[in-house]
Amino acid sequence: MTTETEIIERLRRIATAPEARGLLDDAAVLDGLVITHDSIAEGVHFLPSDPPASVGWKLVTVNLSDLGAKGAIPAGALLSLTLTGDGQWEADFLTGVEHACESYALPLIGGDTIALPDGATRVLGLTAIGRSGANVPDRAGGRAGDALWLVGTVGDAAAGLAQLEANVRATGPLVDIYRRPIPQLGAGQALAPHAHAMMDVSDGLLLDARRVAEASGCSVAIGLDTLPLSSAFVAERGATLDARLFAATGGDDYALLAALSPDLDPATLSLPHGTKITRIGTLSAGEVSLSLTSGGGPVELPETLGFEHQGNDPRGLSAPPMAGRP
Amino acid sequence: MTTETEIIERLRRIATAPEARGLLDDAAVLDGLVITHDSIAEGVHFLPSDPPASVGWKLVTVNLSDLGAKGAIPAGALLSLTLTGDGQWEADFLTGVEHACESYALPLIGGDTIALPDGATRVLGLTAIGRSGANVPDRAGGRAGDALWLVGTVGDAAAGLAQLEANVRATGPLVDIYRRPIPQLGAGQALAPHAHAMMDVSDGLLLDARRVAEASGCSVAIGLDTLPLSSAFVAERGATLDARLFAATGGDDYALLAALSPDLDPATLSLPHGTKITRIGTLSAGEVSLSLTSGGGPVELPETLGFEHQGNDPRGLSAPPMAGRP
Repeated sequence: MTTETEIIERLRRIATAPEARGLLDDAAVLDGLVITHDSIAEGVHFLPSDPPASVGWKLVTVNLSDLGAKGAIPAGALLSLTLTGDGQWEADFLTGVEHACESYALPLIGGDTIALPDGATRVLGLTAIGRSGANVPDRAGGRAGDALWLVGTVGDAAAGLAQLEANVRATGPLVDIYRRPIPQLGAGQALAPHAHAMMDVSDGLLLDARRVAEASGCSVAIGLDTLPLSSAFVAERGATLDARLFAATGGDDYALLAALSPDLDPATLSLPHGTKITRIGTLSAGEVSLSLTSGGGPVELPETLGFEHQGNDPRGLSAPPMAGRP
Repeated sequence: MTTETEIIERLRRIATAPEARGLLDDAAVLDGLVITHDSIAEGVHFLPSDPPASVGWKLVTVNLSDLGAKGAIPAGALLSLTLTGDGQWEADFLTGVEHACESYALPLIGGDTIALPDGATRVLGLTAIGRSGANVPDRAGGRAGDALWLVGTVGDAAAGLAQLEANVRATGPLVDIYRRPIPQLGAGQALAPHAHAMMDVSDGLLLDARRVAEASGCSVAIGLDTLPLSSAFVAERGATLDARLFAATGGDDYALLAALSPDLDPATLSLPHGTKITRIGTLSAGEVSLSLTSGGGPVELPETLGFEHQGNDPRGLSAPPMAGRP
């Protein structure tokens, strides 16, 4: 009997090269290139009812989000495609892949297509490669005193997924964000030269913030009242403490979390026009921990901080959940 | 209704960047790195009865063979691992992955691990990255007058697979070669600076030789009597014309095919000690074609030149068959 935890620990023991970053980061770094691979499986990371083009879009953008978190410029992708049945699903899937690749100037440069037995579970993978800048921030560089900034909003995709779980025909802006997320490439590129630590928020803001605290060896305090919520989210769920905790733990956000020097005002950086960047917390010296505040007082941590992969699967080895979380 | 052929053609239309090499080569080339991805599925590319460690070994070496064909030095790999059942199969699989990575100095630097529903078909993938030399030969550079050389032997793996198909408990050197192939990395590195065209032989020598002819726009003649056969192969199947045709079409060879100037004697290159390299044919001007000779006379082409992926799937998009060919 070998558990998933043991498999992951085994992989970490194998992956000792510095380029692997201990398999604790969103991507590997090799010869100036940032390289990431995420796989998704039907019934695990996407719903059989999801439009195939949206699955293709998400496979590309989930990898682009990892490149964004390292400040990399997209350079190429290799697609691992399985074929089952009559190929119509795959043709529609490719439409989404192509659209996302075109939208973010990510050339498809290779890959592999294999036929699966009829009825087999679809497993799609993408290796995305980006050119890095001089600084490739990881999760471990956060320093006591740093300000914690969030790029984007949280909660939209989780609210959209909840709408779909209640009604598979649901539509609207939250479903759109769930199905067609936008990776924060430009903001990541602008922040990377200055960020002490940076990662993409994929498994839930609180869980990912705790990972920064753990990797950086410090405590993180987050003010829930400061969390950026979209107007669509507020219209659906409100802006109460409960709604904010839902947004902070729902995951699938394609946002970025960056630890910056308290002296740095991100408004002075060349962020893409319209970038929403919000200071949501602070890193402090002391024991590794995560604490929350709201209305001037402390808030107890929720039982679940986000999507915990079985066996504390490190993020570098797992796609963020998209639906039907295992 | 979309056929596999249409999917592949669609991928080719999407992959227009020069780094993609038209998806017709074994690998993409980006910023001095050679990048390849091959995926394998249970029941398609390996037998459920194959020892999992041998499947792990093959997943790594099938990718290393692609790097070898481009003359690249292994630099890193990203593993896409699916988990089903109790994880014991995957633990044994990783033993083979680790052994192959260690054997060829290929550091595991990242990847993704995802859980699949119980009973789902295992799909394993690897992205291998190598550092290229000054010349990265493709399939298209063969010139009229070039000599065609083969590195390694042909037929061993196909003969081993045939033994296993007759008796799942078969053992011996041919089964060993089928299960634990040896990629020609050192020979590829020594040949790459001089090769006009080079590729790895994975789908059958005759089929792959015809691909060189097609890509290079010339005719290829192969002397079947010159084909290098191992003593284990000859002991099992003899060296008759039939045996030679079996060896030339069986596939899964992990050999290299190189088109070299007729003036170049590979014995003058620094090939690894013990490298078997054999001149097996010639490239000539004229219509694209493949012709065979034996005993001084012409031999008709066999009906099947090797493992044709459904829809003439280009090799750059397909893993070579390992067993139970779809």
